[in-house]
Amino acid sequence: MDKIKVGIYGYGNLGKGVELAISNNPDMELVGIFTRRNPSSISPLFKTSKVFSTDDVLKMKDKINVMILCGGSATDLPMQAPELANNFNIIDSYDTHAKIPEYFSKIDEISKNANTLSLISCGWDPGLFSLNRCLFESILPNGENYVFYGKGLSQGHSDAIRRISGVKNAVQYTVPYDESVESVRTGKNPHFPSVREVMWRECFVVLEDGANPKKIEKEIKEMPNYFEPYNTVVHFISEKELKEKHSGMPHGGFVLRSGKTSDSVNQIAEFSLKLDSNPEFTASVLVAYSRALYRLKKQGLTGAITVLDVPFSFLSTKSRNELLKEIL
Amino acid sequence: MDKIKVGIYGYGNLGKGVELAISNNPDMELVGIFTRRNPSSISPLFKTSKVFSTDDVLKMKDKINVMILCGGSATDLPMQAPELANNFNIIDSYDTHAKIPEYFSKIDEISKNANTLSLISCGWDPGLFSLNRCLFESILPNGENYVFYGKGLSQGHSDAIRRISGVKNAVQYTVPYDESVESVRTGKNPHFPSVREVMWRECFVVLEDGANPKKIEKEIKEMPNYFEPYNTVVHFISEKELKEKHSGMPHGGFVLRSGKTSDSVNQIAEFSLKLDSNPEFTASVLVAYSRALYRLKKQGLTGAITVLDVPFSFLSTKSRNELLKEIL
Repeated sequence: MDKIKVGIYGYGNLGKGVELAISNNPDMELVGIFTRRNPSSISPLFKTSKVFSTDDVLKMKDKINVMILCGGSATDLPMQAPELANNFNIIDSYDTHAKIPEYFSKIDEISKNANTLSLISCGWDPGLFSLNRCLFESILPNGENYVFYGKGLSQGHSDAIRRISGVKNAVQYTVPYDESVESVRTGKNPHFPSVREVMWRECFVVLEDGANPKKIEKEIKEMPNYFEPYNTVVHFISEKELKEKHSGMPHGGFVLRSGKTSDSVNQIAEFSLKLDSNPEFTASVLVAYSRALYRLKKQGLTGAITVLDVPFSFLSTKSRNELLKEIL
Repeated sequence: MDKIKVGIYGYGNLGKGVELAISNNPDMELVGIFTRRNPSSISPLFKTSKVFSTDDVLKMKDKINVMILCGGSATDLPMQAPELANNFNIIDSYDTHAKIPEYFSKIDEISKNANTLSLISCGWDPGLFSLNRCLFESILPNGENYVFYGKGLSQGHSDAIRRISGVKNAVQYTVPYDESVESVRTGKNPHFPSVREVMWRECFVVLEDGANPKKIEKEIKEMPNYFEPYNTVVHFISEKELKEKHSGMPHGGFVLRSGKTSDSVNQIAEFSLKLDSNPEFTASVLVAYSRALYRLKKQGLTGAITVLDVPFSFLSTKSRNELLKEIL
């Protein structure tokens, strides 16, 4: 069998996750990791993984079936995706929800002109959660959607704390309130007046020598948008404890719909994730959808698509007969 | 907008659920209910619903876009589906898992020859659970799938008790063990040596006058396949209590995959349902997928397909732009 030839563009946590995920899928082959840094400065997880400079990416145009973009949504992807979509079939996890329509139509136009296929915003949210929002709403039109995040590490909020003067290091977890989760799961269809009732934020902070904990705690709790709208708890811990207990990147959450099919008949559908590693899971989603992207391109599809356009049979290594027998 | 014209073939609990579900979807129109009984003996839920004899179904061939089959899997569907697929685009919830491949290929051949499109085995299992089995396994190839059913009413097991001499009426619930569910949800990846560790069966039985409860309890508990492999609890209650407390048809369950993306990194994905009414929910799935069937047929697709072949965007009444903006 011809393997699907994959490239990794960008080598942070997500890129490493993709390298791992490819190793878990025998029908995939990693052609190379592309980095903006000096390739010789990079130690890939597997010795067999080749590292190239992003400057050389166009030389590999004919050797790669799918390029998996592993840069950040804020600045990397809007810059990299248009250029790469002009030369490769690309897949990314672009997650700036408000800008997705604009991003989609840009990549769609480029890909159509270049005769490539691009799958954008593929991860767990946007991605698997979007799939379930669409499915649930279609099946239960009279209902209410709920989305909860956590317990999980928020990279953005951790960064915001680290930028405070006097803070040496920090980790922030988003934690849903058990009672709110429970009231949703038991079909009470609650209305939450604000996010404060849905989740709270727990911070583990390492101080610089001589920093004032009272002042820093106040600064965190009053930070607009990031912490002010929430109940926030701040713990000061040692660098050692932070490294030991808070160096993973767990996350998760759920999409739930509670809807009525007739007057007194309530139906609840829920999709939930409990992840030890957010980047490794997102990477696994990207790799499964790379298989679908490769197959859909083979069928002649071009332009931009999302997870909502991909039948699940395209994700599986199983044949139609195996799917009918073992999965259905 | 032209509405999607739907027929209901068979008018039991599922057929009634479809009648309700169509009323919840403004882009759908019920053309008629087809029954083997005397149409004038049927009182539909809505006065506006027309009832016809199944004998007259072929006369409606050009008036119906999608025929939703609501008969039973054991005997009705294998007889009705081939005939109807020869004349209509059909959708059913055929759920005899072991026979799906054979059933699929029969309907596929008929539909291709007749230039119709048929979506088989569409409900929650097979159906939504199958989708998630496929998705989870594709994303987390190194892992273990778990499926739990209940708490919910099992029609087959209730019927089996009712067939015992001395039993006037009975209802049986399948109940998963909390500890087993918990060990799966917390990622312990347990191995269950038998179904006895996964779920138990709770029976509510109304006796005929003079029947011997001890004897009947023994007969239930020792019934091969149905009850012998499980721990079973039998309660004897009055007909009045049965009617009052056990006349709903709740069900539910979940598909969960626990998989590793690297050595010590475990990831858990779960899809769960908590249904007040099993038939009304299955009907809602059928109606959402009828929309997809109609659209896929318009694109020229013929033959048999399953839920695994349908992109979720086809289920939604939202436009591509709305999906990008509101759902993704």
